Order: sequence, then C-alpha cells, then structure tokens
Amino acid sequence: MLQGVSADRSVSMFTPLVVVELASDTKKEAIAWLLSRIRDKQQNGGAELLVEQLSPGLGTEKKEKPNLFLVGASWHRLLSGAEDVGLFKEHSDGSMRGFTCANKHNFKDFQGDGDGFLSMAECQYIIKHELDTLRAKDETHVPGHSQAKLYPGKSIIRRLQSKGILIQIFPLHEQEELKRLSFSWYKKVKLAFQPLDDIRHYYGEGQALYFGFLEYFTFALVPMALIGVPYYLFDWEDYDKYVIFAVFNLIWCTVILELWKRCSASLAYRWGTLSRKKAFEEPRPGFHGVLGFNPVTGRKEPLYPTAKRHLRVYLVSLPFVLLCLYLSLYVMMIYFHMEGWALSVHDEDPTFWTEILLFIPSIIYAVVIEVMNLIYRYAAEFLTEWENHRLESSYQNHLVLKVLVFNFFNCFASLFYIAFVMHDMMLLRQSLATLLITSQILNQFMEAFLPYWLQRRRNKKMINKVKNKRTLEDKEFPLAEQVRMEADMSTYLGTFDDYLELFLLFGYVSLFSCVYPLAAVLVVLNNISEVYSDAFKMCYVFKRPFSDPAANIGVWQLAFEAMSVIAVVTNCALIGMSPQVKDYFPDSETQLILWTVAIEHGLLAIKFILTFLIPDVPKHIQVKLARLEFESLEALKKKKILETSEFSKIDQ
Amino acid sequence: MLQGVSADRSVSMFTPLVVVELASDTKKEAIAWLLSRIRDKQQNGGAELLVEQLSPGLGTEKKEKPNLFLVGASWHRLLSGAEDVGLFKEHSDGSMRGFTCANKHNFKDFQGDGDGFLSMAECQYIIKHELDTLRAKDETHVPGHSQAKLYPGKSIIRRLQSKGILIQIFPLHEQEELKRLSFSWYKKVKLAFQPLDDIRHYYGEGQALYFGFLEYFTFALVPMALIGVPYYLFDWEDYDKYVIFAVFNLIWCTVILELWKRCSASLAYRWGTLSRKKAFEEPRPGFHGVLGFNPVTGRKEPLYPTAKRHLRVYLVSLPFVLLCLYLSLYVMMIYFHMEGWALSVHDEDPTFWTEILLFIPSIIYAVVIEVMNLIYRYAAEFLTEWENHRLESSYQNHLVLKVLVFNFFNCFASLFYIAFVMHDMMLLRQSLATLLITSQILNQFMEAFLPYWLQRRRNKKMINKVKNKRTLEDKEFPLAEQVRMEADMSTYLGTFDDYLELFLLFGYVSLFSCVYPLAAVLVVLNNISEVYSDAFKMCYVFKRPFSDPAANIGVWQLAFEAMSVIAVVTNCALIGMSPQVKDYFPDSETQLILWTVAIEHGLLAIKFILTFLIPDVPKHIQVKLARLEFESLEALKKKKILETSEFSKIDQ
Repeated sequence: MLQGVSADRSVSMFTPLVVVELASDTKKEAIAWLLSRIRDKQQNGGAELLVEQLSPGLGTEKKEKPNLFLVGASWHRLLSGAEDVGLFKEHSDGSMRGFTCANKHNFKDFQGDGDGFLSMAECQYIIKHELDTLRAKDETHVPGHSQAKLYPGKSIIRRLQSKGILIQIFPLHEQEELKRLSFSWYKKVKLAFQPLDDIRHYYGEGQALYFGFLEYFTFALVPMALIGVPYYLFDWEDYDKYVIFAVFNLIWCTVILELWKRCSASLAYRWGTLSRKKAFEEPRPGFHGVLGFNPVTGRKEPLYPTAKRHLRVYLVSLPFVLLCLYLSLYVMMIYFHMEGWALSVHDEDPTFWTEILLFIPSIIYAVVIEVMNLIYRYAAEFLTEWENHRLESSYQNHLVLKVLVFNFFNCFASLFYIAFVMHDMMLLRQSLATLLITSQILNQFMEAFLPYWLQRRRNKKMINKVKNKRTLEDKEFPLAEQVRMEADMSTYLGTFDDYLELFLLFGYVSLFSCVYPLAAVLVVLNNISEVYSDAFKMCYVFKRPFSDPAANIGVWQLAFEAMSVIAVVTNCALIGMSPQVKDYFPDSETQLILWTVAIEHGLLAIKFILTFLIPDVPKHIQVKLARLEFESLEALKKKKILETSEFSKIDQ
Repeated sequence: MLQGVSADRSVSMFTPLVVVELASDTKKEAIAWLLSRIRDKQQNGGAELLVEQLSPGLGTEKKEKPNLFLVGASWHRLLSGAEDVGLFKEHSDGSMRGFTCANKHNFKDFQGDGDGFLSMAECQYIIKHELDTLRAKDETHVPGHSQAKLYPGKSIIRRLQSKGILIQIFPLHEQEELKRLSFSWYKKVKLAFQPLDDIRHYYGEGQALYFGFLEYFTFALVPMALIGVPYYLFDWEDYDKYVIFAVFNLIWCTVILELWKRCSASLAYRWGTLSRKKAFEEPRPGFHGVLGFNPVTGRKEPLYPTAKRHLRVYLVSLPFVLLCLYLSLYVMMIYFHMEGWALSVHDEDPTFWTEILLFIPSIIYAVVIEVMNLIYRYAAEFLTEWENHRLESSYQNHLVLKVLVFNFFNCFASLFYIAFVMHDMMLLRQSLATLLITSQILNQFMEAFLPYWLQRRRNKKMINKVKNKRTLEDKEFPLAEQVRMEADMSTYLGTFDDYLELFLLFGYVSLFSCVYPLAAVLVVLNNISEVYSDAFKMCYVFKRPFSDPAANIGVWQLAFEAMSVIAVVTNCALIGMSPQVKDYFPDSETQLILWTVAIEHGLLAIKFILTFLIPDVPKHIQVKLARLEFESLEALKKKKILETSEFSKIDQ
C-alpha cells in the first residue's frame, strides 16, 4: 500500500493532464521510443512534454490496463503551446488577442510565471495538439510493430490510433472543479442562467455553445409556450383559429435564428474563438490513399483523388440515401394501411380487443422507425467512412447531412402525409402529441437514466473493490484509481445526438405547433429537463471530452435555417388549408392557392432580406474586431517607416 | 514657346502620374502649405511625394485652370507605398503574395532599383492612397481658407474636396500604352478574347472585371442564342413549344452565375486582389456629423449615429422608393388603358391615322419611363447622400439598390402584367422585341456616339487652337497640353451604368426569352458592340479613372443572383400557363397549379443546393491560398521556436 502511495507521489511531480492508453500487447521498445519522442526537445522534433507510466493498479488487477501514461507539461511549454494553437486570451485592454509569449505580460490575469493563466481544459487541448503534431522523422515503422508504417512527417499518434496500438487518449477530470461546476450548474434548483463561462472553462467552447444554444432555444420558446396555453385552454376544438398562430410561428423562427447568430458571435468573441485562425487540419486517422505530397504543406501524406470521392458520394451514397427514404416512405404507407384496416375492424365490431388493435399499428410503426434509424445510422457511418474524407470536419458534415435527412424524413413524413394528403387536422394533432410525448420520455430514459444507472453500478463495484483493499475514510481516490476509473467511463461522442434531438424538437414546434399549440410548452419542459440530464451526464457519466475551440454551432445553424424555410412553406400551406381562409375565397380554389403561393413567396423573400439586413455579428464586436485589425496594420506600418528611415539613413 | 518647353522639362524631372486641380481662387498660402505637406518627409507626417505646378498654358488662356499640379514619386517611395496599400504581386515561386520592401528581390520581375516593377496604374493608385491618407497635424483650418476646418487626423485632400477647393484629381493617360492597348482591344476586327490582363494593367482590376464579366456573359449567351435561332425560324407562331426552352433557361442561368464566381475568383487571384486585405476605409468626403473619436482608429472624425441613419433609410427612403414604384405602376396602368382605347378606336374605324394612333401610347410610355428614370436617379442620389453614409462603399450599395429596384420595375412591370394578368403571349413577345431593340439602339447612341461626337468636336477645337499657336509636325502634344486636354475630358463615373445595362439585358433573357427565343441573339449582338463602344469610350472619351482593386463584381453578383431566382419563378409560371402543360391536367386547374408550385419549389431548392455544392473558388486556387496561409503559420512557428530556444539559453 505504501508503495502505491509513493508511486502516486512520483507521478504527481507534474500535474497530469492527459491520459494515453496503449494496448496491453504493445512492445516494450515501442513504448520506450514513444516516451522518448514525447519527451524530446522541440528542436530535435520532439513534443517536449512530461510523461510517466501510471504505477500498476492495486492487487490482482495488474493485467488490467497495464499501459496507462500520464502526460503533462511545464508552464513554459504550455504557454508556448498556447501560441502554437493560436489561443485567444483577454488582453489587459479588455479585447481578445492571440496569445504570444513575447507579449505575455500584457494579458490580463497573467501573473509571475503564468501559473494558472491557462485553464486546465486549455492545457489539455494544447497537449492534445502537441501530441497530434508529433511527427515521425526518419523512422520507417513503429519500433516493434512493423505493420505500423511511418514516413517523415506522419503524425505518430494518428498512426498508433489507426493501427489500434493507441486505445484511447483522454483528458482527466478535476474533482474539485467538477464538484463546484456541477453544484452551480444543476444541483441547486434555481431560476438562473447556466454558468456558461464555467462550462466553457471546464469543457471548452464547443460544449458551452451547445448548452448556450439549448438555453437560448428554451427561452426563445417561452413566448410560443405562453401564447400556446390559452390556445389550448380555450380553443382546443376550434382549430381553424390557428392562422394567427402560424403567422407568429413564421416570424418567430426567422427572428430567433438570426438573433442566435449574434448571440453565438458574442459568446465566441468572449471566449476568444471568433477570430481565431484554425490551424492546418491533419488528415483523419482512418484516411487512406496513395502516398504523395500534400500540395499545401509539401509534407508526405496519403492522397485520394477528389473525383473518386465525388463518385462515391454521388453514385453510391446519394442513391443509397434516396433508397432509404423511399423505403421509409413505403413503411409509412404500410402503417397507414394497417391503421385503416384496424380502424375498419374496430368499426365493424367494436370490442375491447379491437380497441387494443387500434394501438398495434402505431406501436409497430414506432418500433420499426427506431430500428430503421439505428440500422441507417450504422450504414451512414459505414458509408461516410468508405467515402474516405481527408478531414474530420468534412467527415462529420457528410455524416450529419445523411443522418439529418433520414431522421427528418422518418419523424415528419407521416405528419406531412396526414396534413397535406389526408387533410385530417384532428389526427395530425393526435399524432404530433403522441410523437412528442413518447419521444421525449424515451429520450430522457435513454440519455440520462440508463447511463446514470449503469455508471452508478460500476462506481459502486469500484468503490467496493477499493474498500476491500483498504479502508478509506473519505471517498477521495488516489490519482491512480481515479485514472483507472475514468478510463472505464463511457466516451462522450460529441454533441451530434444532442443537436439532432433539438433539431427535431425545433421541427415539431416550427412546422406544426399551430395545430397543437401545446407543443412549445412540452418542448420547453423537455429542454429544462434536458439541461439537467445533459449536465449530469457530462459531469458524471462520461469521460471528460477534449475541448473544441468552436466559433459557432457549425452545420447545425444551416440545418436549423433550412428547417425554418420548410416551416414557412408548411405554415403557409396550413394557413391556406384552414377553413377560416377558405371562407374568403368561396368560389374559386384556384384564387386561394394562387394567393397562398404569392404570400408564401413574399414571406420567403422577406425572410432572406431579413437574413441580409440583420448583421451576424453585433456592432460592438465588429468594432472591436476592426480595431484589432487596424492596430495590427498600423503597427506594421510604423515598423516599416522606422525600417525605411533607417534604410535611407544608411543610403545617405 | 521656348519657355513653355523648358517649363515642361523642369516638370518632367520626375514622371508625372496624377494631376490635382485646385480652384482658381485658391489662396497662395493654401497652395504653398499643401505643397509643403505633400513634399514633407513621412516621419514628419508628410506624404513624401514629388509635386510641381504645371506651367501656365500657352498664350491667352492663362486664366483657364491656373492651378494644375503634377504629382509623382521616387521609385523608392512608390515601393514603400505599395506595401502600405497591401499590393499583391507575383512571387518568384509563381504565387501571389503581399509585396514587402524587405522581400522585394523575391518577387518576379523585380530588377535592380524596382523601375518598371509597378504598373503606372498601380503607381497612380498608390499616389491617390498616399494623398488621401495625408492627415492634418495641428492645423485648425486650411491656411487662407478659414471655412475649411481641420483637426488632427483629418484627411486633408478630402476636406479640400468637400469644400470645393480641390476641383478634381485624376491620373494621366499614357499615350503609347493607350495606343497599343486600344489596338489589341478593339481596333482590329478579330475573333479573340479581350486582352483582359492589359486592360487590368492599364485601368485596374475593377474595370478589367467588368470587361471580363461582359465577355463571359456574352459567351454564356451563345448556347442560348444557338438554340434560339431554330426556335425562331421554325416555331415562330407555335409558342406553346417553349417549355423545353424555359427549362433550359432555368438551368442555364443558375449554372453560369455559379461558374462566373469561380471565373472571377481566378481572375482576382491572378491579379492579386483575391486575398488582398482592404485598408481601413476613410469616411467619404460628404459625410458629416458631430466631431468625436472613431472607436476603431481612435482618430478624431465626424460621428453620425447609426440609429438616425436607419431611421432615414427605413422611414424616408424606403417609403419614397415604394411610392415611386406605385407611381410607376400607375403610369403603366394608364398606358394599358390608352393602348386599349387606341385599339378600340382603330377597330371602329381603321384608317391610316388610327394606325398611327396605335403607336402613340407606346411612344408616350417610353418617353415617360425615360423621364421617370432620370428624375428618380437624381432623387435616389439626393436621398442616399442625405442618408449620410460613412463609407463610399455603403453609399454605393444603397444607391445601387435603390436604382436597381426602380429600373427593374420600370422595365419589367409591363411585361409581367402582359404575361400574368393579360395572359397574352403574342403581345408579350411583341413588347419584348420592341423594348429590347429600342433600348439597345438608344443605349448605343447615348453611350458611344454622342460622347464620341462631343469629344471629337472638343479635340478638334483644341488641336486647332494649338495649331494656331504653333506648327506641329505630328499631333503629339507637349505634356502641358496633354494635361490640360485630359482635365477637360468627361469624368468616368464608374461601372454602375454599364452593369445596370447588363443586368436589364440578363433580365430580358432569363425571364422571358422562352417567349421570344431571339432575345439571346439580340443580346449577344448588343454585347459585342458594347465591348467596342465601352472600350472606345474608356480609351478616348473619358479621363483615365483611378484603378480600383476589386476582387469581384460586388453587389452586382447578388443582383444577378436575385434575378436568377426571379427567373425560376417566372419561368415556372410561364410553363404552368403553357397550353402544352395545361393539356396534361384537362380537368383540374388546381392540380396544375399545385404541381407547378411543387416543381418550382423543387427547382429553387436544387438551385440553392447547387450554390452550396459548387465551390466559389476553384480547387487549385484554394490550394494556393491554403499554402500561403500554412507557410506564414510555419514561418511564425519556426521564428518562435528559435526565440524560445534562445530564451531558454538565457534562462540557463
């Protein structure tokens, strides 16, 4: 036991930030080589980081995860890394500027050595970046693993990852910080905003933007919900009153998306990601191709012809997606046939059993949809992998697009069918309510309770195990145990599913809430519980994710905007179909349709004009960005004039 | 006479590039002060340029334009100015890079002193920029002109301009170059592209992009014209065949606009304006407001609240524009009434006089439209001036938008009315043909022949005058005469009217050419003659304009894209109205409309997806730009590692 503690101490010579786990069959020489490369000086092409192997676990579990390594760095190294990754920090004049070691003392909160200047998440991000950009020199393969080929300039970590030698790399949680964050975030019931700055401080900008968007979206829904309640209370059956609601819907969803852009720009500016330049993106680990020279960097790198990728995208993936959509449509038609059949059976002979029969088609359909979504998700991942995208970002975009289209179709096709083919507003309202409520319950269960329960069981086991070995007064584990426990936690797979859920909810509200005004209320309630469950799972269920210096919500902004365009069309059609409006054109249906189409075009035009008129970045931030640019130009000019005058002195 | 020549020689101590004309009543001390400020060293806040007063004219005309000044600069000063304005030049590795004096020898074509490295247009642009950024120090007003207030940081030239002391500032033509350019451009009848690089070399990027666009547009129309001719020859009266033509139209106008973006990016890259950063924009001379501090530069500058400008735009200008549109609509309705009346008179009693009467409404309408356009143009300029925009670019955008909307309405409202209210395809075709042909003839006359004739007369007068004074063997004037003659030439007011004309032609073709397939042929013919007339007027009618480092055609790209969206809607409606399509839905008009609307929405969606899918910048240029960025990042990193290692050496 004493040995364990002392090993812990030898490890905590530096603050461990990131954990690297290698496969248990990794050769000794590979480990030694990797460690030396990580520790080597930057001039020699190393990463100049600190790294230690974690002492083996307590007692019998020695064979479990033998190759865990803790990586850290000196403050000096971290600061120079911050400059490498182009980190923006608050300057002493209040603006956000790219951090440089030369000007470090001009930054706010920079004191003495710079200890505490960078947040732990930033340090972890820097270490990740430095590890990722650790490149092979003249090695032809990883020592001891001849199948893991290397060539000069290849990222070592990515090769180890793609060959399965590196199992995972994750940043460590900070127990103290986490406790404080989780308390201010969700442990107290309060009427307050989320501590976005703290979330960003702990998880990075990408996560914080998601929670910021979730919060913004919830608040944006409140007016809808407030208007929806009286509609629900007083006009439940009077569904031709929904015209005003639909018009409100239209304006609302355009305006909130535009305002979110400004809001997101403000957040991104405050967090220093708005004007941060992205470093050159490395190929993703799974990318393969013929070895050649990258035309941009001149480095050796696999190359894969764009034309070939386009062929795969347009000739295989696109037809596959369309086929899936057709299949989904087909399944939907079967569902409607079954429903019709069940209804006719029930009408012929209304007994208790036929009453139950009425629910059967919906249940089957719901299950089939879930199964289809699942299978499709795997297929989409496989296909996108097969498309062989060079960049992680382009892989993500293609995957998001594929999954988005299919999910949208699966969720809304039946509603569209009911609304515009069957013209049955009562059924539409029923289906909407059913879909919304069941999907919410399912989601909350799958997302929060299940992982919570699994995690709790695992934790308990772990604690018991530890307790068996030694008697702990408090529940604080020594570092080695903490690392082992975190290595066992599930990996957070990014904000994809969270955004997808919000996207579908946004769809329910913006497309059809005029038919079922309570939708907004339900979504608000769901979002509030979503904040809590997401916060909980981020804090206690998953490994800490690496922070992601996002400046906006990326492709999702586009997705939400596309949805809002569809919402204009849908709402106009619903308005055109309402009995109220039809009364204005008693004689001619043609006139009604033409007017509806004309108004719809007008609304779309106004929507696009609004998008142009509302600046994406608030004025005061534009001014700050312009000032920075102006100052750097002026500085350059001054420097030049000085040089020129010196030059002319020499001339004379 | 000898004196004149010697004065010319003393002037040509340096190559004169730019002419500045001051009002004849400018005080002597103002002139002396201005010259000293222009000549002063940069360290002392001067412009460090060379400037000489032009010797007074020959003989009696001494009082005419007494204050003409020639401005030039040393090569050394021009090169440092090139760095100031952020000029991009071709590097010896073939890429375009921002010119810096420190790396000047790494640029292609840089030899010895740098003589001939910059084109004359570039030199003139640099001198304009240096004059514009010549700022007041502690003067409170222009000496001798107490009404021309100054404050530290105020641009002197702009104050002189706004107070009418500076009458004009223009770059000089190069007779030799101009002869060569005009010969290769339009003096020989040839089947070749325009010498865009030479045009850019002489007139700058903005002009060259206009001519590039004109050429591109003409070539893009050729397929339309080729398809149009057989349509015209064989199906003249069979106008329900236009469905295929309309579909072709739709695809065509989307694709050419997307491809133009790529084409324009290629040109702008080649000319070094694509990635060039714009310098901080000064307020336009007419801008006024309360003196304050610019939040970006910290300089003293008039400030005008944005909210106030918004109020003026939305509460005065917008209603005014709408009112004008209403008026134009009203005039159009009167025209249709008159036409109906004339037709009924002719039908009742068809004589020669009633036949003539038939033309009267069209003629009156055409004249009224021209008058309205003219008055509106003045009103728009007045209003936009009154809106008090800080930047020239924002002034231009607001003016373009105002004029565009009104011109679009005036030109196309009657066609839309005929097509979609009167449903008279024969009349539509007639009107279209009349409008196209008359507007072309008028335009060519107003644009080329009239200025040509005026200029010719003026030139002859001038030559005669000079001949009276002295006997010239060849027609080459001494410099002083050339300057005086150019000062008298009309000022080129920018590409506004040229683009507007193209925009309207594009409208005729994309909106309605399915009804009148010969439209494309006419527009192609017009464009070819337009190239010649525009080239001629640029070379011989107008003063040389300052070059404008444009990277694209700016707001016009947007205007053309908006037109192509309107074209989709219009063509779909025309298709839906065609008898051919109507035959498919013999029973139900509603079905027909719904299908048309659905297809239209689909086409619009495809259009937007295409806009996303086709990258705006060709791949090979993207790679080049990425490489530059990567190299600068790497250079920074290397520099930093060196510094750090030195730093750590000191540490040790």
